[in-house]
Amino acid sequence: MKGQRARIRPIGVIRSRLKTRGQAPRQGVEGAPDAWLELSPSLMAGLVGLAAGSQIVVVTWLDRARRDVLRVHPRSDRSRPLAGVFATRAPDRPNPLGLHRVTVRRIVKNRLRIGPIEALDGTPVVDIKPVLGGAADF
Amino acid sequence: MKGQRARIRPIGVIRSRLKTRGQAPRQGVEGAPDAWLELSPSLMAGLVGLAAGSQIVVVTWLDRARRDVLRVHPRSDRSRPLAGVFATRAPDRPNPLGLHRVTVRRIVKNRLRIGPIEALDGTPVVDIKPVLGGAADF
Repeated sequence: MKGQRARIRPIGVIRSRLKTRGQAPRQGVEGAPDAWLELSPSLMAGLVGLAAGSQIVVVTWLDRARRDVLRVHPRSDRSRPLAGVFATRAPDRPNPLGLHRVTVRRIVKNRLRIGPIEALDGTPVVDIKPVLGGAADF
Repeated sequence: MKGQRARIRPIGVIRSRLKTRGQAPRQGVEGAPDAWLELSPSLMAGLVGLAAGSQIVVVTWLDRARRDVLRVHPRSDRSRPLAGVFATRAPDRPNPLGLHRVTVRRIVKNRLRIGPIEALDGTPVVDIKPVLGGAADF
């Protein structure tokens, strides 16, 4: 990683009715809505092989998170003891990457309808990966 | 993501006997070895709550990958038709992030013995997350 500063470039963006952290459930399976993933049109060739019904992991850059936090109260519950960020899924962490396992509902040109997903409207997307079968399933 | 160029900063590095892509299996469950994850000592507080036996997802930055590739032959098998990189786990992709589900074998100060993992020696680590239980399991 040259110069300790690799640049991560958005490949797309989440379009969701969730606008603030207060509106978002903590995990997608906790009542999150479907959303659109708008992929940069120049990257459409990368979608070949995905289709409605595909299980994917969407990797986001949680751009509203804090990067200087190492300990948090799990699920923001102050009655729970502080845990290291690497033992939680809290968005605040040195590199605020989010992992979201979702189903592809449909694909319309460069837009994927996906869900359920708790990511906020405007969140940059940095990668898409298929879910693997078997023991290594993400 | 200001200026479209968020910087991702390594939080640690993989120390493995795998030195080249040719030596590495395609996925950790395909005969990969255990390895050490050396966390930056300044981030040790982030580990509180992890222990031997923890299931975690290690996120790496695959620094030897190509970022200008959108289609690949799955598993580098040229008899298989080209697929979009977002439909494969190939390391070559616009943001070469790797997801590795591993077990923590033990923790010695800032070093975690983990495995099995197919990441190469020297690969930067950019995040660590716990595996969630239930349907959202990564």
